[in-house]
Amino acid sequence: MIIVTRPDATDEQIDRIRERVEAVGVRTHLSRGEHHTVIGCVGDEEPLAELPFLSMPGVETVHRVMKPYKLAAREFAAEPTRIRLGDSLIGGQEFTVIAGPCSIEGWEMLSSTAAVVQEAGGAALRGGAFKPRTSPYSFRGLGMEGLELLARIREEAGIPVVTEVMDTRHVEAVAEHADVLQIGARNMQNFSLLSEVGRIHRPVLLKRGMSSTIKDLLLAAEYIMQQGNMEVILCERGIRTFETATRNTFDLSAIPVLKRETHLPVFADPTHAGGIRELVAPLGYAAVAAGADGLIVETHPDPAAALSDGDQALTFGDFRKFMAGLVPFAEAAGRVGPQSKKAGASSHSSAA
Amino acid sequence: MIIVTRPDATDEQIDRIRERVEAVGVRTHLSRGEHHTVIGCVGDEEPLAELPFLSMPGVETVHRVMKPYKLAAREFAAEPTRIRLGDSLIGGQEFTVIAGPCSIEGWEMLSSTAAVVQEAGGAALRGGAFKPRTSPYSFRGLGMEGLELLARIREEAGIPVVTEVMDTRHVEAVAEHADVLQIGARNMQNFSLLSEVGRIHRPVLLKRGMSSTIKDLLLAAEYIMQQGNMEVILCERGIRTFETATRNTFDLSAIPVLKRETHLPVFADPTHAGGIRELVAPLGYAAVAAGADGLIVETHPDPAAALSDGDQALTFGDFRKFMAGLVPFAEAAGRVGPQSKKAGASSHSSAA
Amino acid sequence: MIIVTRPDATDEQIDRIRERVEAVGVRTHLSRGEHHTVIGCVGDEEPLAELPFLSMPGVETVHRVMKPYKLAAREFAAEPTRIRLGDSLIGGQEFTVIAGPCSIEGWEMLSSTAAVVQEAGGAALRGGAFKPRTSPYSFRGLGMEGLELLARIREEAGIPVVTEVMDTRHVEAVAEHADVLQIGARNMQNFSLLSEVGRIHRPVLLKRGMSSTIKDLLLAAEYIMQQGNMEVILCERGIRTFETATRNTFDLSAIPVLKRETHLPVFADPTHAGGIRELVAPLGYAAVAAGADGLIVETHPDPAAALSDGDQALTFGDFRKFMAGLVPFAEAAGRVGPQSKKAGASSHSSAA
Amino acid sequence: MIIVTRPDATDEQIDRIRERVEAVGVRTHLSRGEHHTVIGCVGDEEPLAELPFLSMPGVETVHRVMKPYKLAAREFAAEPTRIRLGDSLIGGQEFTVIAGPCSIEGWEMLSSTAAVVQEAGGAALRGGAFKPRTSPYSFRGLGMEGLELLARIREEAGIPVVTEVMDTRHVEAVAEHADVLQIGARNMQNFSLLSEVGRIHRPVLLKRGMSSTIKDLLLAAEYIMQQGNMEVILCERGIRTFETATRNTFDLSAIPVLKRETHLPVFADPTHAGGIRELVAPLGYAAVAAGADGLIVETHPDPAAALSDGDQALTFGDFRKFMAGLVPFAEAAGRVGPQSKKAGASSHSSAA
Repeated sequence: MIIVTRPDATDEQIDRIRERVEAVGVRTHLSRGEHHTVIGCVGDEEPLAELPFLSMPGVETVHRVMKPYKLAAREFAAEPTRIRLGDSLIGGQEFTVIAGPCSIEGWEMLSSTAAVVQEAGGAALRGGAFKPRTSPYSFRGLGMEGLELLARIREEAGIPVVTEVMDTRHVEAVAEHADVLQIGARNMQNFSLLSEVGRIHRPVLLKRGMSSTIKDLLLAAEYIMQQGNMEVILCERGIRTFETATRNTFDLSAIPVLKRETHLPVFADPTHAGGIRELVAPLGYAAVAAGADGLIVETHPDPAAALSDGDQALTFGDFRKFMAGLVPFAEAAGRVGPQSKKAGASSHSSAA
Repeated sequence: MIIVTRPDATDEQIDRIRERVEAVGVRTHLSRGEHHTVIGCVGDEEPLAELPFLSMPGVETVHRVMKPYKLAAREFAAEPTRIRLGDSLIGGQEFTVIAGPCSIEGWEMLSSTAAVVQEAGGAALRGGAFKPRTSPYSFRGLGMEGLELLARIREEAGIPVVTEVMDTRHVEAVAEHADVLQIGARNMQNFSLLSEVGRIHRPVLLKRGMSSTIKDLLLAAEYIMQQGNMEVILCERGIRTFETATRNTFDLSAIPVLKRETHLPVFADPTHAGGIRELVAPLGYAAVAAGADGLIVETHPDPAAALSDGDQALTFGDFRKFMAGLVPFAEAAGRVGPQSKKAGASSHSSAA
Repeated sequence: MIIVTRPDATDEQIDRIRERVEAVGVRTHLSRGEHHTVIGCVGDEEPLAELPFLSMPGVETVHRVMKPYKLAAREFAAEPTRIRLGDSLIGGQEFTVIAGPCSIEGWEMLSSTAAVVQEAGGAALRGGAFKPRTSPYSFRGLGMEGLELLARIREEAGIPVVTEVMDTRHVEAVAEHADVLQIGARNMQNFSLLSEVGRIHRPVLLKRGMSSTIKDLLLAAEYIMQQGNMEVILCERGIRTFETATRNTFDLSAIPVLKRETHLPVFADPTHAGGIRELVAPLGYAAVAAGADGLIVETHPDPAAALSDGDQALTFGDFRKFMAGLVPFAEAAGRVGPQSKKAGASSHSSAA
Repeated sequence: MIIVTRPDATDEQIDRIRERVEAVGVRTHLSRGEHHTVIGCVGDEEPLAELPFLSMPGVETVHRVMKPYKLAAREFAAEPTRIRLGDSLIGGQEFTVIAGPCSIEGWEMLSSTAAVVQEAGGAALRGGAFKPRTSPYSFRGLGMEGLELLARIREEAGIPVVTEVMDTRHVEAVAEHADVLQIGARNMQNFSLLSEVGRIHRPVLLKRGMSSTIKDLLLAAEYIMQQGNMEVILCERGIRTFETATRNTFDLSAIPVLKRETHLPVFADPTHAGGIRELVAPLGYAAVAAGADGLIVETHPDPAAALSDGDQALTFGDFRKFMAGLVPFAEAAGRVGPQSKKAGASSHSSAA
């Protein structure tokens, strides 16, 4: 931490600031400039993080030097984190697609979607049982019944399943039925929930909050990891800005920035970022090009009849086209695309 | 709801859109223009809200005519909602101040703060037992022990208390110990928590999320009210923008906009909006001038030693000055300010 | 400037960074921490500002210590800048209101507005001759003809006039006819225009750009001042955020932040910040309470017939009420309000 | 235009609103619902655009049905606009890259850059002679001398050149020396400048303002086109949001949205969007994948010695690698990439 004093700071004020720093076991180092004296704090920054230096007389600005996250930081891990999801290994050379309906509406639609997702090279099926909805009057999911349908398709079709958990009281039940637990954007800073999913042994797909910085996202991952669960997939899904032409503003740059800052895998959600069907392909392809490890995408047998998000889900036909179109971009990015992966172990290994 | 068709929409497409609307019991009304045909939907908008019209061939834009919230809407209540808090009546002519430390750190600091708050004309004591913190390494509150201290001061000093609840599993316990339950900005769209506090009989202070629109805030209140709890106080506390000179951007306009849109009382939190001590007074005074019903403010016996938010809490001396300075602004706004309220029942009733 | 190196920076890299700094005549000062070495640069920061340190191997972050503006900085002036505008002195104890129509539409509307503005205690008349409009199909003002009407009313009614200049080629003509030149939000970073108005001898009312930080605004003022014109009035008028309930988000905090950072007077424009008539009073009153030196407000004889901004201009009746309501807030803020100023020199001097 | 009335609007109020609409020659059409009466306005929307309906008693909301831009709208042109730039045809199947230094610093650096750009498959050389800088103390370009160097390299190397114009008084001179005139983000709503470049016969590269919506960008293009110059290239370069990890937030979605809304070519500027060298490739490749027609990129012989933007310019080595890496992405997007274009006229024509 670096503390810059005001031009009019007195020696006594500077002494008191130093005492404050040294009281928590951190050494200080003074550098007197023409206008400002700079107090360098040498050592662990954590004990200083909570101290209200800006309140102390004579202080002008405080600059943090060390990153506030540790376990999530790139430096913490020798290699990128790889997370197994059925046959796929997220975070390595494969480009992984998780797809399915926004909400689970019944058995038939779920099983037909699972078949299409598998056939098109998807690694796992997504489907919401508990749905966070902005309006209390919207469809909020089938709840436990939805979870059971999810468990059944996972068993029958042999496809891994991903579903959202919204309430600390449901974490255990969801972890029992699903392969990956999703934390939605609106719960990214629901710290009780983060701690709770940190205590289970299931990968977590953590979506970036609409007003969260990249640093906030990494700190939310840190909450989970600090409890022992190191399998966190980060997911960019758009932030809130003044632009109204799209539902959110897809912060594509977050992908390369996260790949540089952390060892955790990075996904993108082109469906929610854009909010309209036509944007899924350009945003999804751009995410591959920018270095993402995978996508989570909505597809539905009949979007026009969907109980939620009907305007943005791909039809099965569009989904198949989307997956086929993804391959050359994945290859251009030096990845093994979703379809070539299904072509057999041989092509896989030759590509690797 | 109004559906505008594309210039090239066919009669067949328009017919299908009308059929879709009429299938849920809503009548349609056609208006053919030079470029666009406009389909007016006459009747309750709710059954249409979930339908994916943008996905239907021929549709260009969809305009919602009715507000998505009902119970929170101004039209729902004949009069502004008034909420009793000890001797104060929030939402009427009184201007109400809730004050206290960010976190409860122990008995002594809590009881000394309570005394200062009461003496300066504050209506209730705030204090966090469960603290949502961006970093898992920050102080997260005393938890249940903090709640008990809060219950004790409430008993001993006879001051109402306000504290945050973060987890659905704690709602009952917090409701037992506190007079008002606070929902923090990061949990404004924690829908499980909103529903849970909707089932208890305690007023809720609902803070606006950092990336929530005013409409989102009203829908969050609707979640609570829909469960039966009609005592919701809305609180503006700053939104996220590109400006970095302040911690958040205080959206002052939200105050008059909310006063027009809803019958619920509207508070402001100048402490978190600005993030630095010097801004508490100008932001707080501006909130009164803009029509707020009250403020929630942080004060601490020794901010420089505070375990959280030390840079923004007022010292007791500053808090007293702040409260005194508030009076003429409250009066200019046609309100009974915090100090005149303590001058005795007579002045109170004469002002009312 | 403080340069923080990466944990893996080599001694050779650190040496090269120091050489780069010292090559422009600035001394360096090394502080080796456990993880990072910090290079303090002691001396004038200006020669370093342009150097691409982030590109140098071994550099992690760069922290600027000195403010990038000089002439606009509080420290530059012994006292707050005061600017004479007719009988008023902006930036002192008076609270100053500039009012008038968005666009000058003709002689009659202009002269009737001038009369109302004077009578209600306004210090100057605003009126646009050149109008920046988002759409090329909107009314863009009367141009030179508008300027002449402005000059005539200034002469006949003896009221100072304020008008916008949009083009470097018009600066001279506008300066000839107006007492204050306004730079609109969209031109706040039109650096050619800023330099041009810096060369004339007329006060400039500089509106904050919709996506400009407070620092950007001060740098824009610096552009003008650097050319010799030190009479700049800064004006907060709302920034762009995700909130759509108001046209812009009025950044009220900018007022106290600017009052602390600069010696220049600070105004607010409640008309454009809110974009609707009902918000003018709450935003305007809040601006006084937050410490603004004055307001610029739109009023029009018949807003429903206005050629621009009709939805936000106050009628004459509303304007008179607004001005009367302003007085107690100005007094609560320790200011001489607009109406008491017109009550005669005696009351003025007694208040000062 | 659709006008929705308040639930309590009287018949008289509704009549007055209709009269107002019909007075400008537009027919109305009434649709009475349970809560609201909807007034459909049938005919040209332009005469209504300026009328302050929100001010009229009884009006709740106003919905615009028609797009505010005409010449820039997709419907206006039978085919995508193609713009010739030397050997390249922007807006067709080619993917076009314009590259060069931020500022022109001298002859040597300019000519060496031109050679590298040509060799690597770039279509034109960019270089700033007039530089808009946030601080008046930054290097502002060589001005006229820079223009002359640009003209010389264009002549000697036979490479088209692109440069920014900032002042209405320079438009003619810049148009004389350059093949494309660039309007920078800060001048996107400098309407005098837009009109002026609308009167010349040179393509204009129009950068999106930092707080401009996509609609604002199209209206800015409309300003230019309305004066007769139909050759406008739109350029996404990042918007201002709360995220601080990148200089701006690259709004990738703007690319596919613009491709759908307009017939004009769409470029991206990955250099300014990200603000750091490492982001140029991921953002640039993503732009191709999302459907952009080209890129404008900064490269410099020695970024560490550059007079401006040194932290974000690519070295020549990085630029060559970047261009080579672009090819497979361009091909995946069905485009002819920058290098294959240089492979000879035959491959070019066979690909077209």
